[in-house]
Amino acid sequence: MNIVSVADIGINAAECLLKKKAFDELTLSDRIRQNNMELFGEDLSPTTLVHRIVQDVRHKGDEALFHYTKLLDRVDLTADNLMVSEEEFQEAERSADPNVVASLKKAADNIFSYHEEQKPRSWMTYRAHGSILGQSVLPLSRVGIYVPGGTAAYPSSVLMNAIPALVAGVGEIIMSVPTKDGVINPHVLLAARFLGIRKIFKMGGAQAIAAMAYGTEYVPRVDKITGPGNIFVTLAKKEVYGHVDIDMLAGPSEILILADDSASPAYIAADLLSQAEHDPLASSILITDNRSLAERAMNEVQNQLESLPRKDIAGVSIEKNGRIIVAENMDQAIHLANISGPEHVELLLRDPFHILPRIRCAGAVFIGEYSPEPLGDYFAGPNHVLPTGGTARFYSVLNVETFMRRTSIISYTQKALEDVSDDIIRLAETEGLEAHARAIRMRRGENAELS
Amino acid sequence: MNIVSVADIGINAAECLLKKKAFDELTLSDRIRQNNMELFGEDLSPTTLVHRIVQDVRHKGDEALFHYTKLLDRVDLTADNLMVSEEEFQEAERSADPNVVASLKKAADNIFSYHEEQKPRSWMTYRAHGSILGQSVLPLSRVGIYVPGGTAAYPSSVLMNAIPALVAGVGEIIMSVPTKDGVINPHVLLAARFLGIRKIFKMGGAQAIAAMAYGTEYVPRVDKITGPGNIFVTLAKKEVYGHVDIDMLAGPSEILILADDSASPAYIAADLLSQAEHDPLASSILITDNRSLAERAMNEVQNQLESLPRKDIAGVSIEKNGRIIVAENMDQAIHLANISGPEHVELLLRDPFHILPRIRCAGAVFIGEYSPEPLGDYFAGPNHVLPTGGTARFYSVLNVETFMRRTSIISYTQKALEDVSDDIIRLAETEGLEAHARAIRMRRGENAELS
Repeated sequence: MNIVSVADIGINAAECLLKKKAFDELTLSDRIRQNNMELFGEDLSPTTLVHRIVQDVRHKGDEALFHYTKLLDRVDLTADNLMVSEEEFQEAERSADPNVVASLKKAADNIFSYHEEQKPRSWMTYRAHGSILGQSVLPLSRVGIYVPGGTAAYPSSVLMNAIPALVAGVGEIIMSVPTKDGVINPHVLLAARFLGIRKIFKMGGAQAIAAMAYGTEYVPRVDKITGPGNIFVTLAKKEVYGHVDIDMLAGPSEILILADDSASPAYIAADLLSQAEHDPLASSILITDNRSLAERAMNEVQNQLESLPRKDIAGVSIEKNGRIIVAENMDQAIHLANISGPEHVELLLRDPFHILPRIRCAGAVFIGEYSPEPLGDYFAGPNHVLPTGGTARFYSVLNVETFMRRTSIISYTQKALEDVSDDIIRLAETEGLEAHARAIRMRRGENAELS
Repeated sequence: MNIVSVADIGINAAECLLKKKAFDELTLSDRIRQNNMELFGEDLSPTTLVHRIVQDVRHKGDEALFHYTKLLDRVDLTADNLMVSEEEFQEAERSADPNVVASLKKAADNIFSYHEEQKPRSWMTYRAHGSILGQSVLPLSRVGIYVPGGTAAYPSSVLMNAIPALVAGVGEIIMSVPTKDGVINPHVLLAARFLGIRKIFKMGGAQAIAAMAYGTEYVPRVDKITGPGNIFVTLAKKEVYGHVDIDMLAGPSEILILADDSASPAYIAADLLSQAEHDPLASSILITDNRSLAERAMNEVQNQLESLPRKDIAGVSIEKNGRIIVAENMDQAIHLANISGPEHVELLLRDPFHILPRIRCAGAVFIGEYSPEPLGDYFAGPNHVLPTGGTARFYSVLNVETFMRRTSIISYTQKALEDVSDDIIRLAETEGLEAHARAIRMRRGENAELS
């Protein structure tokens, strides 16, 4: 990690440094290809492999789901052990830490409270001559939540995906969690259970996404799939998009800290590292207008890194994807932050609310020195499923709207239709659609010409 | 078109008749493959061809855009004629029908008025100890609207795509319209002009979608692409999804009329035909609990069809994709309508508002006999860009939200963070993320252990 000064390299070079790539197969390592070679005896690109898995599950159902789970995850699935059983839930209750469960419940309360503020309503307006226009805002019928598993366990992901769906009023929520040896982390199971989710499928990867998208004998078809996963999950979400909806295509986690001379170098370093410890591909960026702060923050990062348990991951991440950029002034710093469009932005500034309206592109904004990013990861209430890779240009944070859909309502009276009938007929005829015009004419009693 | 009775075939067979396929390459005719064979000398599937076009435009920019436009649309594009010129706008003003322009302006007023009702706001809530949680709802910076062109001209599509974007406050709207011989319909141009859209690119197909998704020297990169198109446009939208957002993957148009014995067979037939005239693939369905109505409606369809200018198209559509289904009762009829999940539903019922809440899956609902579907296509105000192929399960009608994105806002005070710090630390440690825990501990003044 070194310090780059915009004054030295110029604004264009600084923009290029910060511009993220949206999700792309090209970001993959050769290791995955190598692995595919070993498993399949062919040089398969991840996209080709995922296409094959998805189509196999689509056409062969559970047989293919079980086959790929065995091949890729080394877990033997059957009709009997695919879904988490009542005994497994009970076992989870015995082995869980009650303090952790209590903290998860408090977090859940906050997440419910925040998301309830978002809930859109169906509405209508009364128009001329007794006509009504409106919009129904309805929950989706069934959604599938993908919770990453394997070595790590993320009970917080269960809360963050499921609670907006519950607030939306989704009819049924099912969950997909890959396992190591068929066992799911007890806190993940209990978080699901206290939210009322009973159908938890022990499956992961592209095969799990395909099973939820098309349905199999044992896995019901869903309307939307949300939640982050590895590269195969992400490619599979793109492959099934259109047959179901998805939340977004997500990549590695990111933080960008915008700081002035009022900020604490120790806090900056701690927050950069809390992002870096997720993943060697995670990106941690500081942009400041103050050279001295940049230097002190860099030293703090090195100091704090030394004693971190996940020092190896965080070290690689900081080295490869960490950046400290000294801007010529705060306007330029803000411009560069918007160019990057990161998942998380922290405003460690003397007057952060003054700057807030100028942050046009970010997943979530953390304001002031007592709003570190982990507060949002776990507890404050806003969602931690956020756009990455610069896709905050167009993707939203996961929200209640994610789990609802909108339908127009149109109700005209005879008089209301009559008043606008000339215009509609004219526009229909302009577009060459005579049957459209006739449907209107007929309502004016002009039936004669039709038969 | 014949009448199918659920009493005869059973409910399962009726459901199968109505279940739509989401957008799929498999719905394509062999004609397209044949065409590709002639143009490219290879047996290319549409997906493979679109992938090639998109990647070429991505990497070679305008050169590839011009190449494919020449090859596929037989139009010579250059840097000078790619964008509609001021002279062309002026020529459009001279050749346009002022009455049509006046009707378009009235329609635009209605569309503005309806969409303004939808506009979401940024919000915040005050929480314990001076903390603030909120959500910014911001317009996208730049969007691209695809307006189908060629033989047909759809000025209404300009209004329906652009107005929600304008209400959202989108920074810049660009438009892509394929042309025949480089000329765009004057009403399409004038609709764009009176909405303030100046950058209109004379391009279409997969190459146009790729140009807007990745940007070229002459076409700026957008954040989202909306609007329907042919099969190549739709496949290209899926290909670029994730690099930009898209509105939806849309297929042929659909209407489903739910009618009881109070409905007029003549209105039913006119409305079925107004859908059928769009496209041989369009689908027109009547579901009723009344056998006699079904028979009278079928006769009306045959009668009215005879004198339609687009009789050939509508006739094929009705023959192949028209259905009249007699349900055993209204509950069953409603169930079948929801299974179909059509783009447009008309409720030609004695008491339609009583049934409205039970319509759970549709793009738009038209209530009562004076709300024929063309009213919504052109004039009432709600959008005519709607989900098809059963994707109303998860897609919404195009709306203001389509052009906005949501960012979380989190601002905690020292006391507010302190109160929840134990819980956050516990959850972070449960997930094995010690650096996350430290970022919180440090705010409590526990710096000592860190170095």
